[in-house]
Amino acid sequence: MARGGRGRRTFSPVALVTLGGGGPPASARERLTVVSPIDPTSTGFLLAENRNMPMHVGGLQLFEKPDGAGDDYIREMYEAMSDVDELAPLFLKHPYRSVRTGGQLVWKPDLQFDAHHHVRHSALPAPGRYRELFDLCSRLHSTRLAWERPLWESHIIEGLADGRVALYTKTHHALVDGISAMRLLQSVLSTDPDRRGMPAPWAATPSKPRSSPPAADPGHGLTDIPISALRSALGLTAEAAGLPGALVRTLSQGVRNETSAVSFHAPRTIFNQSITGARRFAAEDWPTERLRAIGKATGTTINDVVMAMCSGAIRAYLIELDALPAAPLVAMVPVGLNAKQSQHASADGGNAVGAVMVQLATDRSDPGERLRAIHDSMAAGKEALSSMTPVQIMAMSALGQAPMILAPLLRMQGIVRPPYNLIISNVPGPRTTHYWNGARLVGTYPLSIPINGMALNITCTSYDGQMAFGLTGCRRTVPHLQRLLGHLENEVVALERAAGVA
Amino acid sequence: MARGGRGRRTFSPVALVTLGGGGPPASARERLTVVSPIDPTSTGFLLAENRNMPMHVGGLQLFEKPDGAGDDYIREMYEAMSDVDELAPLFLKHPYRSVRTGGQLVWKPDLQFDAHHHVRHSALPAPGRYRELFDLCSRLHSTRLAWERPLWESHIIEGLADGRVALYTKTHHALVDGISAMRLLQSVLSTDPDRRGMPAPWAATPSKPRSSPPAADPGHGLTDIPISALRSALGLTAEAAGLPGALVRTLSQGVRNETSAVSFHAPRTIFNQSITGARRFAAEDWPTERLRAIGKATGTTINDVVMAMCSGAIRAYLIELDALPAAPLVAMVPVGLNAKQSQHASADGGNAVGAVMVQLATDRSDPGERLRAIHDSMAAGKEALSSMTPVQIMAMSALGQAPMILAPLLRMQGIVRPPYNLIISNVPGPRTTHYWNGARLVGTYPLSIPINGMALNITCTSYDGQMAFGLTGCRRTVPHLQRLLGHLENEVVALERAAGVA
Repeated sequence: MARGGRGRRTFSPVALVTLGGGGPPASARERLTVVSPIDPTSTGFLLAENRNMPMHVGGLQLFEKPDGAGDDYIREMYEAMSDVDELAPLFLKHPYRSVRTGGQLVWKPDLQFDAHHHVRHSALPAPGRYRELFDLCSRLHSTRLAWERPLWESHIIEGLADGRVALYTKTHHALVDGISAMRLLQSVLSTDPDRRGMPAPWAATPSKPRSSPPAADPGHGLTDIPISALRSALGLTAEAAGLPGALVRTLSQGVRNETSAVSFHAPRTIFNQSITGARRFAAEDWPTERLRAIGKATGTTINDVVMAMCSGAIRAYLIELDALPAAPLVAMVPVGLNAKQSQHASADGGNAVGAVMVQLATDRSDPGERLRAIHDSMAAGKEALSSMTPVQIMAMSALGQAPMILAPLLRMQGIVRPPYNLIISNVPGPRTTHYWNGARLVGTYPLSIPINGMALNITCTSYDGQMAFGLTGCRRTVPHLQRLLGHLENEVVALERAAGVA
Repeated sequence: MARGGRGRRTFSPVALVTLGGGGPPASARERLTVVSPIDPTSTGFLLAENRNMPMHVGGLQLFEKPDGAGDDYIREMYEAMSDVDELAPLFLKHPYRSVRTGGQLVWKPDLQFDAHHHVRHSALPAPGRYRELFDLCSRLHSTRLAWERPLWESHIIEGLADGRVALYTKTHHALVDGISAMRLLQSVLSTDPDRRGMPAPWAATPSKPRSSPPAADPGHGLTDIPISALRSALGLTAEAAGLPGALVRTLSQGVRNETSAVSFHAPRTIFNQSITGARRFAAEDWPTERLRAIGKATGTTINDVVMAMCSGAIRAYLIELDALPAAPLVAMVPVGLNAKQSQHASADGGNAVGAVMVQLATDRSDPGERLRAIHDSMAAGKEALSSMTPVQIMAMSALGQAPMILAPLLRMQGIVRPPYNLIISNVPGPRTTHYWNGARLVGTYPLSIPINGMALNITCTSYDGQMAFGLTGCRRTVPHLQRLLGHLENEVVALERAAGVA
């Protein structure tokens, strides 16, 4: 029936059963479409969504064109990304609910998949600075994905003054979490600059033979884990079904008990308000070497330094707005667990995630002192985590996975003190340079999900010697979010001075 | 609560009643929000909408920058368009349904209106040809407007190689029809190239004093009619409530009665299939003088020539696809009625619209013969229209206003022969050059609504000595739609030759 647009092939949903012959009428076709259940966690993400809380994660990747790339390079990149023979089932399904499904939300393959809806060629207004790129990403990240189509969108963006190509991709949290989404994108990359004919991330490709087990090379191995393993490893499976109940009990105890090692009284801040659907995104990266030097000189970890940068930047930002509370802010920090700690770590390598509450010491004016306090708080939190029962860890881990499910349960807008003030994640990425059909990946930045009561999210990820900071906030609740970038840079300099490595 | 983004003013809904003091909690605020009923026609447009049939009309306008415009001109234009103090209520309301409204759809003012969601600054990929512009407009026109926000979007688009600025605006048909939308945009324009400080089309401005009654200068007057008058004049009011029933009766008679003067048996064509949500848009204009010369030499009207151009182009297009039916195609052509003909013409000037079925003579190979046949068919249709009762005219007029309500009622996909093959509209616009803050409007093109069974829509409008053709189709059902532009040009040349004016 439907013709291929511009002479392109049409997509045939992988999981579709059809009658033979000329094809059944639409109603019969619908009955015969194979629908599949949506696990409770994903259902939660779908149902928690509203105009003010789109539930998609985003990724921004910057590529440098290969030497000798022609004028049509970006268009060819777009054509290669959109002209895919067959899609991975993940990218073909959309949520569907009807009387026929008993009112239950189910996944249904899109019978009229339109690649041009999902893969788009965009451009930046002049002068093509990163400001214009972040504006576009903010705008794209503000808009909800329509349930009537598969829950993802990718934009190949040209017009950067420095000649780079940007790729913004958004994917619903019901499909993948932010880290999985970034890894999925990276999974199609290669360390070989001369390799060509590489598939788009959403293409259905025969699984590549693994050269080494993922644990052997943490930098490299991340890109070799199949997405199904990533999903289960990160707890986004049906196993997570019972979490919210246990979680609320654990967290309520933490909120009531001031002496709890895992939770503090967090002060009220501008970040802990109801949010709107408007987003502001900003990103930047710093050489990991600078952060490592600070850590080495002070006996702290790179992760501690990342937290201290965030702490100092947030302190400066709130002082500018005359909105710094007297009590220190508390960050919820997802941390990796080893297989021993986590009973539900997957057999594929143990990527399960727990969460630690970290006091950010925003009440102290000395950068060195802040770093020390954060290091101690982080160590205490990890210590507490190691003494927790698997159920408690599972409960904490859901904090990282499903804060948006949690928030309505706790009526976060109503409670006097939020359990924490913001979420700061730091997830290691590939350590070596990667390429997509000869285009060098020069930066990769996550866009996360602000929720009611948590208007700012900071997600960091390392890649090829750089530590990238992706800041996603509600544009109205967190004004001038982009100023945090300048404060982060100031804080690195201050920490270098405090550590005596400047 | 919500802060103004980037220090901008926030918008306060005009029709909102709030309690005094610090403001009530959200639930109380919701109860106090003034909702307003949605008239049945608009409700019909909202309910008929689905992924495959977005119910918005679009307009593409091209501007030439004024002499001496700086590098920041387009950005300043965007700022001026998005930085509006107060919005017209039309652009602040969104559809809303809840238990509290008894399950009824109502209009509700948007309490968190975000100008940056609705007014956007976009850019074209290189090389910035009209092909890239049409691609972007096609894509923007394919996506549904979310009901959770006011039902409009406007894109100020830069990056055209010829330095022009494009403005694409989409507005839900529940707010305005396509012609009203274009007039609304034009209503803020001026014939004075030196005038500055002009408002955005969506700004709430004190109504301008009218220098002359609209009827006095048909070219100019169109832009002076307030939108409320346009809406009622075009029948988009509650008066239209009873139409669909009467319409179906009349049309069913037409379909059954082969000898009816207002309806013919239309052949099945590729245009008369179920459609998808993918859109293709293409547009071009021709000097009205060329069309007038053909009409003058052949004793036909400009409108006849427009129809003949469409007929010849469609014939060539279908021959290329080996899909030309033996019987001639039938077009539904909305025509203006004078106040005497139409009982429900508004007091403001009588803009009511009826519809005529025109046989396009696509079975004839000679361009001159086609023009003659179309002229005769059009004259017969208008004659029939003048002899119709007001109820019949009202019924026919609903064809132009609400084909998408009609289509499901008739189960258009199921009936063997469609009542007509496509809709061709030709609506006169301003005759003089218009400006927005010094930027000269050089072209204005309508984007219409393909529906199931009517995959192609051609809407023409005149402006400043040019006749613009806007072609909107389902990308999959009407492949290579843009080829129709070349065929239209070939047909003008063929008609000029036939008329002896080449």
